[in-house]
Amino acid sequence: MPQYSIGVDLGGTNLRAAAISREGTVISKILGRAELTHGREAVVADMVHSITQLREQCGDHELLGVGIGVPGFILIDKGVIVGSNNLPEFDHYPVRDVIEQKLGARVILENDANAAAMGEQWMGAGRGVDDLVLITLGTGIGGGIISGGKILHGVDGMAGELGHMTVVPSGNPCGCGNQGCLEKHASATAITGMARMMHLGADPTSEEVFKMATDGDEKAREIFVIMGRALGIGLATLVNIFNFPLFLLSGGPLPAWDLFAPAMLSEVKRRSFTYRNTHTRIEKATLGNEAGLFGAAYLGARIEQKA
Amino acid sequence: MPQYSIGVDLGGTNLRAAAISREGTVISKILGRAELTHGREAVVADMVHSITQLREQCGDHELLGVGIGVPGFILIDKGVIVGSNNLPEFDHYPVRDVIEQKLGARVILENDANAAAMGEQWMGAGRGVDDLVLITLGTGIGGGIISGGKILHGVDGMAGELGHMTVVPSGNPCGCGNQGCLEKHASATAITGMARMMHLGADPTSEEVFKMATDGDEKAREIFVIMGRALGIGLATLVNIFNFPLFLLSGGPLPAWDLFAPAMLSEVKRRSFTYRNTHTRIEKATLGNEAGLFGAAYLGARIEQKA
Repeated sequence: MPQYSIGVDLGGTNLRAAAISREGTVISKILGRAELTHGREAVVADMVHSITQLREQCGDHELLGVGIGVPGFILIDKGVIVGSNNLPEFDHYPVRDVIEQKLGARVILENDANAAAMGEQWMGAGRGVDDLVLITLGTGIGGGIISGGKILHGVDGMAGELGHMTVVPSGNPCGCGNQGCLEKHASATAITGMARMMHLGADPTSEEVFKMATDGDEKAREIFVIMGRALGIGLATLVNIFNFPLFLLSGGPLPAWDLFAPAMLSEVKRRSFTYRNTHTRIEKATLGNEAGLFGAAYLGARIEQKA
Repeated sequence: MPQYSIGVDLGGTNLRAAAISREGTVISKILGRAELTHGREAVVADMVHSITQLREQCGDHELLGVGIGVPGFILIDKGVIVGSNNLPEFDHYPVRDVIEQKLGARVILENDANAAAMGEQWMGAGRGVDDLVLITLGTGIGGGIISGGKILHGVDGMAGELGHMTVVPSGNPCGCGNQGCLEKHASATAITGMARMMHLGADPTSEEVFKMATDGDEKAREIFVIMGRALGIGLATLVNIFNFPLFLLSGGPLPAWDLFAPAMLSEVKRRSFTYRNTHTRIEKATLGNEAGLFGAAYLGARIEQKA
């Protein structure tokens, strides 16, 4: 009997789920909205409904397990979310056990950036690479570290908070209490923040700043250079710490690669002799929004037996 | 028959070796000078001589293997040193195989800071902790990362170059090509450099700057505050990346802990919400110069069979 697992990606706006074969073929996919305002029970019901639909579509194939990627810190062993700004109602709620019970199937929870890193390692830009770091550029900046083929969790499941590396010690203030966090200088939010400070257009989105830059606007182009430099400082430190063969970037600002990557890579080159003396690759992730689904499905297919 | 291994620590000035039981008891120890100016053959002969002496002292106990900690990058699988400023003659020389042949015993080479981290994990401040980072403060700053009870090597054995994390993007220039490397703001050399810039005494050593600070000299005290802040920036980033339970500091400037640690810890507190929300410990390593010996012996006792 063919085996498959289900990956779920619960974001701030979208709820996505896919049934994926053990070999990585997408069998079926569901895209819905994450109606977080409808309350916890409704969101859980939506997830269970999506998963049940996919199971029905997979007929008599064997379901190995379900992986769910969510924003926030995950206490893996307990299967609970803590400290997610998007999902305050889920704080310390036993979401994994509740869903397991409703489904009668094994479930694993994982942080969304960790799941995305796992997805890229399994079926994306990191295929065949056991050690890699993924940096996700969005409203904030997240990170996932795969070491020896496994997600590096740290002792509390909080490892990989790459958006809060200090890259400008006296830089922009961050909600986390720090100044100069990477995400305050290189996220989509940082791009629009700089555009506002430079009086570029009427409160443009990061896509609009990108459009201005490709149209040749010098100020808009400078924003991406500043963003690239900040990413380069962070990446150089990561290369020096990990000496991994592959560092990946994903997220909304990726289409602006040609605008920010030259500054980023020249900064890494200057700041990391490890980079200059090894074959470290710094590249675009390839799975886009699908990375989290693939990673969650990968984890769902490989849930270890409980003690 | 009792089992033991031998740890060797080859530094810029000293050659140290110890026979240590599998349980961590020092059976015998030899302290000699590393006569690097006498050439490669002489240094190898000195190491072999020390190891042979220790073997004789251990009588009919079973030697499990020999671990050798050296400064520089180690290609573990090949057993060669690359890019060690202190040991240029050893560059790409098959030092492990040569010593193995002379001894008729299994030998493993390891970077000295990695060996020290392993030693602290085995018998020092990190006993019982599977995940820790050691920062060694000396002429430069080195680092060793223990993840899941094993040294994190990276793909080329260059992981853990924590002295070259960027902590001040426009800071002091470093020989590695970067500016603002941690080791240019927080090593013993950084302390004496700042003292020189502040016209403190006649080219004082870091110990003399420490003495001035404990005697109440305000400028000297400020140097340790600046050093502490730089360490704090680096540590906050490491805590955010790894979420490990333990971060250790070792090396010459450790006696100045009370002068630099308050600034360091307040910087970590401010810059890492992970630190503020977990039970992360930042502490002094406890084995001092012995850490490398213990770590090398630990590794020597656990050499995996060659494929």
